[in-house]
Amino acid sequence: MTDGQPTAADTPGRLMAAEIAEQPAVFDRILAESLTDVRGVATRIRDAKPRFVVVAGRGTSDHAALYFKYLVEIVLGLPGGLASPSTTTAYGADPDLRDVLWVAVSQSGGSPDLLESTRAAGRAGALTLAVTNNPQSALAAAAELHLDVRAGLERAVAATKTYTATLLTLWLLVDEWSGRHRLDGPALVDAAEQAVHVAGVTQVAGHYRFVDKLVVTGRGYAYPTAREAALKLMETSYLAAHAFSGADLLHGPLAMVDSDRPVLAVVPHGVAGHAMGAVLERLRDRGADLTVVGDAESAGQVPAIVLPRVAEELSPLIEIIPMQRLAHTMAIARHEDPDAPRGLSKVTRTT
Amino acid sequence: MTDGQPTAADTPGRLMAAEIAEQPAVFDRILAESLTDVRGVATRIRDAKPRFVVVAGRGTSDHAALYFKYLVEIVLGLPGGLASPSTTTAYGADPDLRDVLWVAVSQSGGSPDLLESTRAAGRAGALTLAVTNNPQSALAAAAELHLDVRAGLERAVAATKTYTATLLTLWLLVDEWSGRHRLDGPALVDAAEQAVHVAGVTQVAGHYRFVDKLVVTGRGYAYPTAREAALKLMETSYLAAHAFSGADLLHGPLAMVDSDRPVLAVVPHGVAGHAMGAVLERLRDRGADLTVVGDAESAGQVPAIVLPRVAEELSPLIEIIPMQRLAHTMAIARHEDPDAPRGLSKVTRTT
Repeated sequence: MTDGQPTAADTPGRLMAAEIAEQPAVFDRILAESLTDVRGVATRIRDAKPRFVVVAGRGTSDHAALYFKYLVEIVLGLPGGLASPSTTTAYGADPDLRDVLWVAVSQSGGSPDLLESTRAAGRAGALTLAVTNNPQSALAAAAELHLDVRAGLERAVAATKTYTATLLTLWLLVDEWSGRHRLDGPALVDAAEQAVHVAGVTQVAGHYRFVDKLVVTGRGYAYPTAREAALKLMETSYLAAHAFSGADLLHGPLAMVDSDRPVLAVVPHGVAGHAMGAVLERLRDRGADLTVVGDAESAGQVPAIVLPRVAEELSPLIEIIPMQRLAHTMAIARHEDPDAPRGLSKVTRTT
Repeated sequence: MTDGQPTAADTPGRLMAAEIAEQPAVFDRILAESLTDVRGVATRIRDAKPRFVVVAGRGTSDHAALYFKYLVEIVLGLPGGLASPSTTTAYGADPDLRDVLWVAVSQSGGSPDLLESTRAAGRAGALTLAVTNNPQSALAAAAELHLDVRAGLERAVAATKTYTATLLTLWLLVDEWSGRHRLDGPALVDAAEQAVHVAGVTQVAGHYRFVDKLVVTGRGYAYPTAREAALKLMETSYLAAHAFSGADLLHGPLAMVDSDRPVLAVVPHGVAGHAMGAVLERLRDRGADLTVVGDAESAGQVPAIVLPRVAEELSPLIEIIPMQRLAHTMAIARHEDPDAPRGLSKVTRTT
């Protein structure tokens, strides 16, 4: 760094790129190190026999929370809800949370409103579980149970590996809790490795080079992916990226889809992809500029980015990876540094 | 209509304008006609002693569902969640819903996925309540309990009076269920009347005439308003209007707020407005173009549109009215017809 030339350490987006590429190794580590912890937590939860699950998270962690809600409802047959922390922290609500499992998701474990609402949930009778990337955090200490997502230190401001590590940890928890044991670790790691290198990302980024408004859509398990992909694009490239479930898109926001507002659809193999059929048809009827990330059979067209197939429940861990790469590539093409989005810091303190 | 000249019946946005203006009268009608029904439903719910509440809705009705979730958590102290209908309709989830009150919100009562998930909820043991503007609808028949929101026929595609009629009906239900009886009907109708005529809407619409990206934000009870306002702007003016809770805005999306992306903040009197203090401060620090709809005391600045004060729980019924007018005014200024948004029809059939 003596002559002012950019060095490897100065390359914009270097941290984010490295953390995206690290995800298969993170999955490997979780599969090697987390199963005992997950079993212990699953046993405690099974013993408590919760009848309702409330999940709390902000930003990226809110999307992990939504993924967990789908798993809980579909695999475990328990009704779930996403917490509105302000009902406790701002309005002082004092709910009856007996028979409730309260799950707080936060990579840093440092969000004051999650900490306060988790403490309040414990006082209100809930069994509390914190899922964080920091076992030393106040949130990990405040909850009765804790799971470390073992993503390793995340340095880029835009969360990538902590997101997928959280999803995998939550999936393992549900797999243990349900007693199904459907893990195929090698297939998952292999799919993640493919997703890190899958073709098409550069072409899609080029197609979107001058776009400033974008709709991202998906249904079912792919809806959290659509939301997380939109957030990455907002954070790193400052796009007006709107995420809608395929169903909600048809209730109003479809009006704003025109030839200047392209649609990026997440259409994986399985139920989520199949359920997008009618949505894709409406979008094609409207002449939307439609780019598909997913599976040709589900989409009825050749996807711009073809996702490796995994069990549908695990698909969100894979399908977000090319979306993270897309956000990174687009930011670089726009001369932004995705490692240092304007106005953001790594830990957001909301109260 | 013999010479092709526009007549009153052809005026773009005529239906939406009339329905916005009709809201105080709709409130009057609900207060005159709905209390007996509401009491009956509240008694049935109290007798069933639900421990969890799950609310389902799409589009505008999803925002009414979110409002109800806040009421249930804050006033009744019950944990609540928003349904993900696809877990039932696409994935065939078979949850245990004993002790659950399932509330399906739909102005038309005609959404197939709500109908199917409501029937499934009943089979799974939930007490089911449909809240619709159509007592003859399949949804009203499918649920064990029904409340008619009595908005009268809504002809504009963009929902306005059905939204606030639904909010009022849901508030009355919670007021009865809780046994508090805090209704001040005349004050509410008076505030709605003021909101229909409040100054500032034209000026804000002029300020936003050439804007195509916008962030709308609010917290607590005002968060559903932010989401509904963004949807109206998307539906009628095709803006990329993003809604974020004040807390979530600071977790990532703040990066895309710059001098080209104005922020419309809903800052009513009360806790919701007070909780926006830190958010407004961060936005001012970033030099955001900030327009406040609300209360000077809460906002720390003179709002562009000053809201009449009502009890905070009822504030969402009032604060959305100038936002509906804003969406209408902006659409007209852009030569769009808010009564006929492109690509939309009145009943959206998602499965």
